[in-house]
Amino acid sequence: VGPEALSLWKSKSTFTSFGVFFLQMGWGDLGAFGEPSKETPNLDQMASEGMLFLDFYTANPLCSPSRAALLTGRLPVRNGFYTTNAHARNAYTPQDIVGGIADSELLLPELLKKAGYINKIIGKWHLGHRLQFHPLKHGFDEWFGSPNCHFGPFDNRALPNIPVYRDWEMIGRYYEDFKIDRKTGEANLTQIYLQEALDFISKQQGSQQPFFLYWAIDATHAPVYASKQFLGTSQRGLYGDAVREIDDSIGKILKHLQKLGISEKTFVFFTSDNGAALISAPKQGGSNGRFLCGKQTTFEGGMRAPAIAWWPGHIPAGGVSHQLGSVMDLFTTSLSLAGLQPPSDRQIDGIDLLPAILQGKLIDRPIFYYRGNEMMAVRVGLYKAHYWTWSNSWEEYSKGIDFCPGQNVSGVTTHTLEEHTTLPLLFHLGMDPGEKYPLSFPSDEYQRAMERISVVVQQHKMTMVPGEPQLNVCDKAVMNWSPPGCEKLGKCLKPPKSDPKKCFWPH
Amino acid sequence: VGPEALSLWKSKSTFTSFGVFFLQMGWGDLGAFGEPSKETPNLDQMASEGMLFLDFYTANPLCSPSRAALLTGRLPVRNGFYTTNAHARNAYTPQDIVGGIADSELLLPELLKKAGYINKIIGKWHLGHRLQFHPLKHGFDEWFGSPNCHFGPFDNRALPNIPVYRDWEMIGRYYEDFKIDRKTGEANLTQIYLQEALDFISKQQGSQQPFFLYWAIDATHAPVYASKQFLGTSQRGLYGDAVREIDDSIGKILKHLQKLGISEKTFVFFTSDNGAALISAPKQGGSNGRFLCGKQTTFEGGMRAPAIAWWPGHIPAGGVSHQLGSVMDLFTTSLSLAGLQPPSDRQIDGIDLLPAILQGKLIDRPIFYYRGNEMMAVRVGLYKAHYWTWSNSWEEYSKGIDFCPGQNVSGVTTHTLEEHTTLPLLFHLGMDPGEKYPLSFPSDEYQRAMERISVVVQQHKMTMVPGEPQLNVCDKAVMNWSPPGCEKLGKCLKPPKSDPKKCFWPH
Repeated sequence: VGPEALSLWKSKSTFTSFGVFFLQMGWGDLGAFGEPSKETPNLDQMASEGMLFLDFYTANPLCSPSRAALLTGRLPVRNGFYTTNAHARNAYTPQDIVGGIADSELLLPELLKKAGYINKIIGKWHLGHRLQFHPLKHGFDEWFGSPNCHFGPFDNRALPNIPVYRDWEMIGRYYEDFKIDRKTGEANLTQIYLQEALDFISKQQGSQQPFFLYWAIDATHAPVYASKQFLGTSQRGLYGDAVREIDDSIGKILKHLQKLGISEKTFVFFTSDNGAALISAPKQGGSNGRFLCGKQTTFEGGMRAPAIAWWPGHIPAGGVSHQLGSVMDLFTTSLSLAGLQPPSDRQIDGIDLLPAILQGKLIDRPIFYYRGNEMMAVRVGLYKAHYWTWSNSWEEYSKGIDFCPGQNVSGVTTHTLEEHTTLPLLFHLGMDPGEKYPLSFPSDEYQRAMERISVVVQQHKMTMVPGEPQLNVCDKAVMNWSPPGCEKLGKCLKPPKSDPKKCFWPH
Repeated sequence: VGPEALSLWKSKSTFTSFGVFFLQMGWGDLGAFGEPSKETPNLDQMASEGMLFLDFYTANPLCSPSRAALLTGRLPVRNGFYTTNAHARNAYTPQDIVGGIADSELLLPELLKKAGYINKIIGKWHLGHRLQFHPLKHGFDEWFGSPNCHFGPFDNRALPNIPVYRDWEMIGRYYEDFKIDRKTGEANLTQIYLQEALDFISKQQGSQQPFFLYWAIDATHAPVYASKQFLGTSQRGLYGDAVREIDDSIGKILKHLQKLGISEKTFVFFTSDNGAALISAPKQGGSNGRFLCGKQTTFEGGMRAPAIAWWPGHIPAGGVSHQLGSVMDLFTTSLSLAGLQPPSDRQIDGIDLLPAILQGKLIDRPIFYYRGNEMMAVRVGLYKAHYWTWSNSWEEYSKGIDFCPGQNVSGVTTHTLEEHTTLPLLFHLGMDPGEKYPLSFPSDEYQRAMERISVVVQQHKMTMVPGEPQLNVCDKAVMNWSPPGCEKLGKCLKPPKSDPKKCFWPH
């Protein structure tokens, strides 16, 4: 496709629907990416019918910031999903978080609405749970799912269990009404999420309205769960059972699109919000393949994400792209597909991937690896420079909290926050994707690569205007004590007195 | 295919030719196995047209023993390719080795000859270089290649450079006549080996004679090399260039079979003699994906091998097998394809993989991990029990010799030879393919698995009759000073006085 054909095609594209599968899964969890049990036949087929992105990144090594970045096209440090309580700390949206997505941020569904889209989120929102942050106030038309992570509390006594919403109101709570058996790992939530997706797609097909479906499920996040029919079916234990069920569900959604005859009008993307959580391994944690460390870190295992684009009739089957990509690109790419321009009044970090997807172009762009308020590392081409390194503190590590189990690269996986801003640690990710062999500082290769990288970093830092940090303040009073709808269910709980405090982010 | 169809088909199979691609390449080096640069399109296509074996093993973590095992169908401890100079030491066939393959061993080509096959080896023999061990004395009809590894010497002064043979006579030496530029990595040897293969196949096609081609190339063994046209073409550096050239060559050989119309009569298998040598990483060493350690060790990275079976019209395209397989199985499987029985006068360790390949059956069999004279570990089902662990000695490790760079699993990657025969270290390779989380000794799972494994190990040890060790004695006088044919070339060198000594095997 030449540029003209592309623009022609763009003008026709107002009716392209989008599906985004977004969850926690590691690079090494898919058969197509080398998982040795090879138990993801549907995702592997999605890849063989679509395009595999091998150099695709989350916007952050943690969930909430990555999700905010996906929907805003902006780095967390810009959209406010970070903390300044301490230097280089990961932060997210637990139940006592006071902040969330600011009204001033423009979310993908808000923009798509202008082009006539109907937008649904199924699953975990994670952009703040107080009423002002509700997804239906930020562009979504429908919601089925939870505002926070399902990992606790579990008994609803001292603290409220996480609510599950349908649109504006809660319809129950995890562990009480939406059961997850933490002994057996049994829960039928993925099946519910699947049915929600199929129903939504069927409904829009009837109305001919283009849609944006954000399928943000969480069965692979500890406590990991799977339906009865999938329990014990994997070589990989409970985590593998959950992966199999997700894989099966995605296969069913894609087949549904095909059955309805709208697969060629629906752009679908699969990716992850962060690397696999190795701290939950082996029973509840996934795999980042040969990459270093996992979730919470700015090594490749924390942020390199599996990624598949699928759009039969448009994307050449079996394609492979080395385009450096980011979840933030889905924002800009979706707007492009809908014939919309990204907002011009703010910095957008996501780029339009269509030239890479449809024309095989490689767009030169860097990847920034942030941990909280600090740019820890940057990738330019095949080189990655670490300006700061840290896995976690000695104090945490000595308690058994380990984001890099079994991995130990001297001077690289550090347990004190190490500054390398004068002489960054440099890796060639083609030769050394596992970040084991820093290049020699006096080498010509180091000098040449750092000259190029320094310009990129300088430019980035000079133009950086951080947003107001949203993840600084915590308060037990803001928890989901009495979400809308609780009265009808008799599930309102009494909040304690407000006592806002700085949130504690240990790593 | 039912059992009857299988036996019917067996009786027709006398004319099935075999190709075996056998080289040093790690599990993680192929795109199909998740290498992040995805630069092996031909091997990936071979896999998508054939069957991927995900649980396939070399017979040893080192080259010579694995090669002897492939050709004899027997563990190195039976066929003599091990040492008793010290406990649990890796040994191979350097230029000063006195031993080699015993006349009493029956090699695959010897047996295939009886069924009318013509047999050729292209590349590295490695089963002893003294005249009595010559491949043409052990069943091969043709040879182009070298008796030992090409890694040195390089100057032909103090020690003779390794000779390259055509059939009975040498035709030159590495570094003198067959150049490998160790600065640039340039060498056209893979192209020569490719042409040898294509010519041999064409010739047999003319004569309608079934053939066995053993393509044992070595471009991915340090010093790694590639032809000019492949240099600099990989994201992975010189090693990746070599892999690309091998991938390209294998693609050309498979296409050649198709062009000649004999692909449906030719069973082709691709696998490796040991895990990637991480000690040569990153510039000259490959990847074992997420497996632990590499060549020289009995962790998965030392012995889990990439493996692809290809036989259009017989093997269902895109197949995946979890059959526990071994390079020794190629011996028995090839005999089965040729309508021959394996020898009944000796223990054969290889099994016939045809039921797994053609009928999707899973045959229950263990995998034994030996280091020299010691059974270090055993795999039964998804469980692997380590009876001994050792990466290498502290003395070597402190000199920078590291078979597990960047990996350190406490109590598992040990630098002293550790005995666990009373309470083996047990891993569940489905949940934990990286061998990071030993199962708890008092757990029910441990007890149940070890009960099953103990029976297998007891049986194995009770019936084990070790062969005479061939890799104990070294002598500079037996080096390739004056190989047959040296006179014609004026390349004979004077051997020193014989001074046989125990070979020194440091790990």
